[in-house]
Amino acid sequence: MLGMMSAVAASLGSKGERTRERILDVALDLFRQHGYEATTMRMIATAAGVALGNSYYYFPSKDHLVQAFYERMHAELVEACRGILDGHVALRARLRLVMRTRLDVLRPYHGVSGTLFRTAADPRSPVNPFSDASGPTRRASIDFLRDVLAGSNARLPRDVASTLPHLLWLYELGLVLFWVHDRSPQQRRSYELVDDTTDAIVRLLALAHLPGLRRIRQRMLHWVSTLVAEGAQ
Amino acid sequence: MLGMMSAVAASLGSKGERTRERILDVALDLFRQHGYEATTMRMIATAAGVALGNSYYYFPSKDHLVQAFYERMHAELVEACRGILDGHVALRARLRLVMRTRLDVLRPYHGVSGTLFRTAADPRSPVNPFSDASGPTRRASIDFLRDVLAGSNARLPRDVASTLPHLLWLYELGLVLFWVHDRSPQQRRSYELVDDTTDAIVRLLALAHLPGLRRIRQRMLHWVSTLVAEGAQ
Repeated sequence: MLGMMSAVAASLGSKGERTRERILDVALDLFRQHGYEATTMRMIATAAGVALGNSYYYFPSKDHLVQAFYERMHAELVEACRGILDGHVALRARLRLVMRTRLDVLRPYHGVSGTLFRTAADPRSPVNPFSDASGPTRRASIDFLRDVLAGSNARLPRDVASTLPHLLWLYELGLVLFWVHDRSPQQRRSYELVDDTTDAIVRLLALAHLPGLRRIRQRMLHWVSTLVAEGAQ
Repeated sequence: MLGMMSAVAASLGSKGERTRERILDVALDLFRQHGYEATTMRMIATAAGVALGNSYYYFPSKDHLVQAFYERMHAELVEACRGILDGHVALRARLRLVMRTRLDVLRPYHGVSGTLFRTAADPRSPVNPFSDASGPTRRASIDFLRDVLAGSNARLPRDVASTLPHLLWLYELGLVLFWVHDRSPQQRRSYELVDDTTDAIVRLLALAHLPGLRRIRQRMLHWVSTLVAEGAQ
C-alpha cells in the first residue's frame, strides 16, 4: 500500500501530490459537513479550486477518495509507530501502543467518521473493508500487524501466530467501530477499551497452549481466516 | 415483546391481525424484489390490496414493518424452541439448539435479509438492533437467552451468569450477520459456525473460573454490558 502510494506520488511529482492531498482534505471536510451521499465530485472540485475534469484525473470517483483516506490512515499509523515500538518486546505493550496510536492518528477525523462508516457498512460498497477494492489496504494492515507481532517475544503456537494478524485486523475494525460511536471527551473510553481488550487478548493467547483447547483453537482460527479471506477472493 | 404482540393482536382482532400479517408478508416480498429504500408504503398498500390510509393504521412507516419483522422472528424462535430444549440441560446442547433453530426460522427470509441488513447497519436508523426503537425486541431476545441459560446445569460465576445473555445476544447478531452473507447451499456454513462457536463459548466459559482471569473477566463483562446497554439509554 505504501509502495503503491509512493509510486503514485512519484508519478504525480510533488505538485501533483500536493494537489491530490488538497482534494482529499477538502473532500473529507465536505463529507463531514454534508455527509458522504450528498457530496458531489463537482462540489469537491469547486472547493479545492480545480477543474472537475482535473479532479477526476486524481480521483475517478468518491469511492477512490475513501480508499485514499484508508491509505493515508495506514501510512500515518506506520509513520507514527516508527520509533514508538522500539525497545518494547512484550506483546501486551506492543499491541497497546499500536492500537492507542491508531486512535491518535484517527482523532482529527472523528467528525467525518460517522458518514464514512455508514457508507463502509454496506457490504456491497467498494469501500467496505472486506471488499476487493479495499484489498490493498487490508493486506497492508495485516502485514503491518504481522510485523508488530514478529517484534515481540511472545511464543505462540505456529497456527496461532500465522492467523493472529487477521484476528487482530478484525479486532482493530471493531475498535474503530466503537470509536466512531464514542461520544466521551476525546474518545477517552476507546482508549480504555484498548487497554482492557489488549490485556484480554494477551491473557487468552497464554491459554492457547492448553491441550484441551487445541481442536477448538484450530476451528476458531479456521473461521478467522475464512472471514478475512472471503472479501479477498 | 410477545406480550406486546398479543396485546396488539387482541386489540386488532383476528381479521385485523390477518391483514397486518398480510401487509408484512407483502412488504418483505417487495423489499426483497426492489430493495428496502426503493419500496414505498404506497407500493405495499397496493400489493396488499388495502387503502394507503388503512396501511398506515397498521404500520405508520416502513421502519415499523422492520420492527414487526423482528417481533415475528423472535416469536417464531420462541415457538420453535418450545419442546426442543426439554430434556437438554447441557449448556452446549442448549446453545447449539437455539442458534440452529434461529437459522431455521430465518431461512425463508434469506432473500430479503441483505436489504434489511444494509438498512439496519446504519447506526442512525431506528431499525438498527442497538436503537431505542429496537429496545423491546432486544430486551425480549436477551430475556429469552437468560431463560435458555437458566435451564442448563452450567455453574457460572455470578457476574458471568448475569452478563452472559447480553454477550450471547451480541454473538447471535454476529451469527445473523454471517448468515446474511452466507452463499453456501441452505447456508450450511452458518450451521457449522454455530456448532464450532457454541463449542468454543462453552469451553471458554469453563475457563472463567481460573483465578488469573478474574480481573480481565470483570473488565470484559463490563464492556459487554456497556455495548448492549448503550442503545437502550
